[in-house]
Amino acid sequence: MLLNETAEQIRSMEIRGAGRIARKAAAALRDHAAGLETPDTASFARSMKEAADLLVATRPTAVSLPNAVQTVMRSFEGAGSVAEAKAAVKTAADSFILSSRHAVEWIGEIGSRHISDGDVILTHCNSEAALSCILAAHGEGKAIEVFATEVRPRNQGLLTIRALNDAGIQTNFIVDSAVRSYINEVDLVITGADAITVNGAVVNKIGTSQIALAAHEARTPMLVAAETYKFAPRTILGERIAIEEREAGEVLDPRIAAGLPHVRVRNPAFDVTPASYVDLIVTEVGAIPPAMAYCIIRDYLGWGIGEFHKEFSIDQMTKE
Amino acid sequence: MLLNETAEQIRSMEIRGAGRIARKAAAALRDHAAGLETPDTASFARSMKEAADLLVATRPTAVSLPNAVQTVMRSFEGAGSVAEAKAAVKTAADSFILSSRHAVEWIGEIGSRHISDGDVILTHCNSEAALSCILAAHGEGKAIEVFATEVRPRNQGLLTIRALNDAGIQTNFIVDSAVRSYINEVDLVITGADAITVNGAVVNKIGTSQIALAAHEARTPMLVAAETYKFAPRTILGERIAIEEREAGEVLDPRIAAGLPHVRVRNPAFDVTPASYVDLIVTEVGAIPPAMAYCIIRDYLGWGIGEFHKEFSIDQMTKE
Amino acid sequence: MLLNETAEQIRSMEIRGAGRIARKAAAALRDHAAGLETPDTASFARSMKEAADLLVATRPTAVSLPNAVQTVMRSFEGAGSVAEAKAAVKTAADSFILSSRHAVEWIGEIGSRHISDGDVILTHCNSEAALSCILAAHGEGKAIEVFATEVRPRNQGLLTIRALNDAGIQTNFIVDSAVRSYINEVDLVITGADAITVNGAVVNKIGTSQIALAAHEARTPMLVAAETYKFAPRTILGERIAIEEREAGEVLDPRIAAGLPHVRVRNPAFDVTPASYVDLIVTEVGAIPPAMAYCIIRDYLGWGIGEFHKEFSIDQMTKE
Amino acid sequence: MLLNETAEQIRSMEIRGAGRIARKAAAALRDHAAGLETPDTASFARSMKEAADLLVATRPTAVSLPNAVQTVMRSFEGAGSVAEAKAAVKTAADSFILSSRHAVEWIGEIGSRHISDGDVILTHCNSEAALSCILAAHGEGKAIEVFATEVRPRNQGLLTIRALNDAGIQTNFIVDSAVRSYINEVDLVITGADAITVNGAVVNKIGTSQIALAAHEARTPMLVAAETYKFAPRTILGERIAIEEREAGEVLDPRIAAGLPHVRVRNPAFDVTPASYVDLIVTEVGAIPPAMAYCIIRDYLGWGIGEFHKEFSIDQMTKE
Amino acid sequence: MLLNETAEQIRSMEIRGAGRIARKAAAALRDHAAGLETPDTASFARSMKEAADLLVATRPTAVSLPNAVQTVMRSFEGAGSVAEAKAAVKTAADSFILSSRHAVEWIGEIGSRHISDGDVILTHCNSEAALSCILAAHGEGKAIEVFATEVRPRNQGLLTIRALNDAGIQTNFIVDSAVRSYINEVDLVITGADAITVNGAVVNKIGTSQIALAAHEARTPMLVAAETYKFAPRTILGERIAIEEREAGEVLDPRIAAGLPHVRVRNPAFDVTPASYVDLIVTEVGAIPPAMAYCIIRDYLGWGIGEFHKEFSIDQMTKE
Amino acid sequence: MLLNETAEQIRSMEIRGAGRIARKAAAALRDHAAGLETPDTASFARSMKEAADLLVATRPTAVSLPNAVQTVMRSFEGAGSVAEAKAAVKTAADSFILSSRHAVEWIGEIGSRHISDGDVILTHCNSEAALSCILAAHGEGKAIEVFATEVRPRNQGLLTIRALNDAGIQTNFIVDSAVRSYINEVDLVITGADAITVNGAVVNKIGTSQIALAAHEARTPMLVAAETYKFAPRTILGERIAIEEREAGEVLDPRIAAGLPHVRVRNPAFDVTPASYVDLIVTEVGAIPPAMAYCIIRDYLGWGIGEFHKEFSIDQMTKE
Repeated sequence: MLLNETAEQIRSMEIRGAGRIARKAAAALRDHAAGLETPDTASFARSMKEAADLLVATRPTAVSLPNAVQTVMRSFEGAGSVAEAKAAVKTAADSFILSSRHAVEWIGEIGSRHISDGDVILTHCNSEAALSCILAAHGEGKAIEVFATEVRPRNQGLLTIRALNDAGIQTNFIVDSAVRSYINEVDLVITGADAITVNGAVVNKIGTSQIALAAHEARTPMLVAAETYKFAPRTILGERIAIEEREAGEVLDPRIAAGLPHVRVRNPAFDVTPASYVDLIVTEVGAIPPAMAYCIIRDYLGWGIGEFHKEFSIDQMTKE
Repeated sequence: MLLNETAEQIRSMEIRGAGRIARKAAAALRDHAAGLETPDTASFARSMKEAADLLVATRPTAVSLPNAVQTVMRSFEGAGSVAEAKAAVKTAADSFILSSRHAVEWIGEIGSRHISDGDVILTHCNSEAALSCILAAHGEGKAIEVFATEVRPRNQGLLTIRALNDAGIQTNFIVDSAVRSYINEVDLVITGADAITVNGAVVNKIGTSQIALAAHEARTPMLVAAETYKFAPRTILGERIAIEEREAGEVLDPRIAAGLPHVRVRNPAFDVTPASYVDLIVTEVGAIPPAMAYCIIRDYLGWGIGEFHKEFSIDQMTKE
Repeated sequence: MLLNETAEQIRSMEIRGAGRIARKAAAALRDHAAGLETPDTASFARSMKEAADLLVATRPTAVSLPNAVQTVMRSFEGAGSVAEAKAAVKTAADSFILSSRHAVEWIGEIGSRHISDGDVILTHCNSEAALSCILAAHGEGKAIEVFATEVRPRNQGLLTIRALNDAGIQTNFIVDSAVRSYINEVDLVITGADAITVNGAVVNKIGTSQIALAAHEARTPMLVAAETYKFAPRTILGERIAIEEREAGEVLDPRIAAGLPHVRVRNPAFDVTPASYVDLIVTEVGAIPPAMAYCIIRDYLGWGIGEFHKEFSIDQMTKE
Repeated sequence: MLLNETAEQIRSMEIRGAGRIARKAAAALRDHAAGLETPDTASFARSMKEAADLLVATRPTAVSLPNAVQTVMRSFEGAGSVAEAKAAVKTAADSFILSSRHAVEWIGEIGSRHISDGDVILTHCNSEAALSCILAAHGEGKAIEVFATEVRPRNQGLLTIRALNDAGIQTNFIVDSAVRSYINEVDLVITGADAITVNGAVVNKIGTSQIALAAHEARTPMLVAAETYKFAPRTILGERIAIEEREAGEVLDPRIAAGLPHVRVRNPAFDVTPASYVDLIVTEVGAIPPAMAYCIIRDYLGWGIGEFHKEFSIDQMTKE
Repeated sequence: MLLNETAEQIRSMEIRGAGRIARKAAAALRDHAAGLETPDTASFARSMKEAADLLVATRPTAVSLPNAVQTVMRSFEGAGSVAEAKAAVKTAADSFILSSRHAVEWIGEIGSRHISDGDVILTHCNSEAALSCILAAHGEGKAIEVFATEVRPRNQGLLTIRALNDAGIQTNFIVDSAVRSYINEVDLVITGADAITVNGAVVNKIGTSQIALAAHEARTPMLVAAETYKFAPRTILGERIAIEEREAGEVLDPRIAAGLPHVRVRNPAFDVTPASYVDLIVTEVGAIPPAMAYCIIRDYLGWGIGEFHKEFSIDQMTKE
Repeated sequence: MLLNETAEQIRSMEIRGAGRIARKAAAALRDHAAGLETPDTASFARSMKEAADLLVATRPTAVSLPNAVQTVMRSFEGAGSVAEAKAAVKTAADSFILSSRHAVEWIGEIGSRHISDGDVILTHCNSEAALSCILAAHGEGKAIEVFATEVRPRNQGLLTIRALNDAGIQTNFIVDSAVRSYINEVDLVITGADAITVNGAVVNKIGTSQIALAAHEARTPMLVAAETYKFAPRTILGERIAIEEREAGEVLDPRIAAGLPHVRVRNPAFDVTPASYVDLIVTEVGAIPPAMAYCIIRDYLGWGIGEFHKEFSIDQMTKE
């Protein structure tokens, strides 16, 4: 019942937001496991598998949902009894929920250690995790100054400067094009991430990769703040993150566009920053170099190639 | 009379625009020279010097004005008679006027030869000279496609896409942040210049240097289209081009800004692209590598260190 | 018996090819384990060790052979009984054989996801794994075009263009020197690998590193397709992959060479591409960043430093 | 007793040196465990925890001490009985001691394989591990030549050239500033490390990062020789290695300094070389790419985020 | 008469080779001038102009022909009498002939000064000017060693190794793909040029730019040896050097090609090396940085924008 | 008489210092010319040539001496009478002396314009010209801070910090190895030059090129302050600046060295910074990009290839 309800709420987007979806799914699986009355671990596993499939199917393109489900599902592999399996599920789900719930705060604590008194920081877009690092450093009494970009076309920079202003942090507001002009004054770039691929490439708001490039040119370090559920497991399979192209009206007033038949607006929401321009990724389970994305996906989120074997078109055993 | 009138019109900004100012000043000197009735070349030179000083003083920070005046003034050095001097002035002034008047067209002809059939070109801001290259290539029947940026905060990109649309050129309109996402599809970047320094650095609309950097990263060549009167002679003296910082209201609505006391808008109008990111500068006197800026200033515009010697604080001859 | 036969067939090169050798060795160990009648796990382990040593000794320089053997041998560590050990061996060997047998196809499926409709791909030499990616993308209906190099001195490019032509893929054939001229038209470079070292350096056909460098200069991504048995475990020990130098006659007609006493032909078969020029390595167990070579060797192939401790010259315990 | 004694000796610096401290701590824990008479594993764990805390508290900033303690402490997790736990502790401690004791020799053996006959090697400062590689190669009969720097301000280069001279190795002695002049003649740079961070950055003697940069510019590979206890676990938490600034008198004679009131001596003992300039790190547990620092810390030294969770300021479970 | 004969011989390719064409054209103009009996300098100039046009029209795409003609034609500008003009023509023509005739030797003398005793040099294709530098260094008794590439598809490397072998120079012969493998052993790259553009880009045999890139990556300097008549004046006008694409049969046996309908051979004869990868260009009038190509064209060869003004489509004077 | 005296004083090093030698030579030629009583310009020229040769022969390796002589000698080319020639010599010599005498001050004025209020500047060694820029900026009231290096092995940094301290400029004193650690805090690097080659490479105190590299990595601009007589004309001929190797005792105490038979001290006094790491060269005749070194040598100092033709081994005219 509860499982079906949660699934329905996720499907209907009553539950939304990468973090909330993930936590609700983990809790649903935990509670479902607690209520199961199966004679043996095999039937327990079968029943859990059905529940997991039901949840994952609700939002096939979300990345945090399968990450949460996978974390729970692998917890009871090798359990010796149903009771043991239930306990393992509970521990894993609770741990995931705790970690996810506090992810942004823990990231803030870890990331703030890379900010020194007197530092000038540049951020792009409006990332809760990136802001958490900045606010934590400010909260520790470090005198910092921030450059925040406008973030065309949706101007999320306004949200960022409001948050910084409210905290009393000295902030400079610039157009996206002005980053290279100021980057020599900047000590550290911090951004969030929408997704991180198996080789540490960072998918984030359009413009991030230009900033990373300018930072790299000026030997300014770049730190990415990202919860582990942002790591995209299916990139192990070679899948690429689709870059959403948003509607033209965000960039060009449709009334103007109507008069310009030869003009086509291109409005990609994200771009891809190569791992070589990222010095460190800060997650709630610690700071890592970008190449460790693979280990986060495999060791922390629990996705090995085995999880995907069924997707290969060749699946029969042949005797050598 | 005419000289004074022209000077007044430049001072009052009745005559404006870098090109027009330059041509009017050259014409005024030419006509002034024609009317002079001086006994010898020395007095001719003195009188011309007064006229030149009068004109240059009208807009002390313009770069095209002293360039025009200097071109005319050096023409009669070494003339054997007043008549010869007058003739030299006329030739130089007319040649300058012709060249300046047709500069954009000639630049278009020269620059278009770097555009091949099928090329994708990216431009930034709304440069008459850069557009001239693109339109000339289109006019020659080459099938081209253009990426044009929005150009925050003043959105000059709108002017550019209107011009391209009117010419029937297939155009893509993107936010400034999206350049790196598309640069691998681009064959050539063409921009204009507001000023070019003695070492070939290009001062142009904010964002140009980020585009140049992204182009360089992707091995996409960058061509700058600039009339010779954009080359800044006083950079030989070590002077730096001051980057105008424009009003905050262009970037952030003042009503919003009023509520954000810790936020300061930084709005530089231009940035500086280093010569090493520019493959070629196209002027009306030919295509040159950026390092040749010095030769344009010295050989074409006529500024040697001698012109500036009086500005040094040490100016007395001492016997060794 | 069977074990000895297999060993002999590998030694005599009746069984050859990196993949076949690996699979035959795994099968031989599996069958040997099945037939063992040992009282306890310790004697089982000793007997398996002898079998493993026998196999590995047949071709001391092969890299796939020890990889297969090691995968099987580590499977039964910690087994509680001989039966359990036998079962573990069977599972590990069968899994290795399946994975190895289908490696090229799985690599093709994974790698093809990095190829988009309309892409232009460049490949070098004649790699089964790289071709598998290209053919899979073509098979999925993507319209692709390929640049294939000649691959002097042995012209393996001919094999590649035949395979591409047979599949009906539009192919451009170029000399090795022409890569930089075309790389700006290329969307993706895909090559195979002869060996991959612990730090992700790729040993492959001579010329690969020049292509990788040109791709890097032009921001063209490079993907390496390689079965896991190509990863060289002994590079953990600091061993370097010896670059075979082949006979001069491949490069210069011996009759001409005879007349040129001061000329020496240098004919290295492979070169080394640093990890920083490789965006992704595609294996049958998933796509990884090059730095994960260490994890493939340690976690998938089973080589830790412990396997090599006996090779150190210092091996006695001393009491502190 | 012994535990307290060891703790006291470490605190009083009677035991000093990163390696000796580590080994003594491991031995103390091993012996402490052997003597424990606890009824169950839980009390065993508690007692061991007290012992561990006691040891770690003696030198809060040392990096090798907690690494040794952690290696031992994680060995008995999941042990089924106290006896099993004691055995596990003994095995882990002995193995750590052996490995640590022979670390420099094993590093020498591994690293020497990257040195070829005829190679010219450059080293900086006086690293036992780096010298071990060079001496091992020399010992194997390879004809090598070394460039050694002076290493201002404390001139540790003198120790290095003495050691090389004593071994009969042809050595060139240069000032630190001359590295770029000779780097094109150098085949390999080898240095030690004072600490290695989670993302593979190498903290080492001031000047190392300039050498690494010059080597990178000239495509000369750089190898870092470092015992595993040099890897800094707390960098996972975002902690940064503090760069010690030593006294001014090392750089400028205090009598001279006294006369120069506007002059301030800056004397950092170390600098930070980014991972991208390091080709390989050689440890006693094998050669690794720099990004694998995370795995050394997590898998070999035993530090996961769990070890640090208590340090986060948010630590309460909340029900979702 | 003689003029017409020379023109005919150039047209019919009886006279061929960039250098010979240039010298014959200069001599023809000189002798033509000597025979002219014109009343004044204006008619002299007109007659010379006709002669120049006749010559240039014989091979419209040659680059050395107009360079020679232009050098002579600008010599008599401003001459006070026909006799003075004739004398100026003779001096200019003789000087050009002398300089051109000895260009390769002078380049050899200048270039050889960049080769030190013990140097290893790499060359590509078969450039007379590049070989001249190498042979001169060898002739001066410097012990040198050369790497020469095969130069697919026409194998001009064979000519190079024959010349080096005949001189007794120790030579290594490698496939084009092997350059990056050996570049760290190379002290200096020397190549010739087929054409040099106004911004110092070097058009040379396919593969040159890959070698330049590999040299740049390894901090190996690159020197280009080129006679001044290789500098392409019309690149000032924006003209680009057309890269000849040669017949497919050079690369792929037509009988094989016939069976491969989906395969297209691409066979560009040249590629373009950017100026930033060239350290020095050695001409017979001295060593210059690549950016000085503009000055060679303007000051030495005599091409200013004025020479090209008539080619612009806008050519009427308008009164301002 | 006076000529011979000056020659003798230069030979005996009574007159020394690059600037003084140059000025004395120019004055000697001027005075010699004034006293000549020759019937025609040809004999005047011959006599001057003898005087010039006498002077140049006194210090064959000095670079400022031939530069001064050449500047004077080319002044009277084409003079119509001996009187005209004498006047031209006087003007040229006086102008050269004035310019040379005030060179350092003028360079200071020009260079100081690149220093902004609040800038942090790094300098290396003890360059009068570089200090002139820094002191001029300080004199203009700009608040600046300087990093000065120690400059091993001769510690010229002490002279620099004394000069800066005396001026009351806040100065940081660091070892040469520490540059990369602080370069991100530095806004501008300024050094002097010992010689500048035709392609803009800067020969300066050992360590300069490492600093330039570190500045380039961090996008910190580098400015070189150099009098025009530092430009080396013979580099047009391909000559390379010999890098003096100074005595071992400067680096290593001979008593220590005596005990280290396998150790050889290498002590180059200078290194070579490539033009691509230099943003601007400031001379007393203006600021220039490095590639303009050729123009300084040719146009300002008066060295064309013609001056060197006699040095070529081929010098006979042959009739084509």
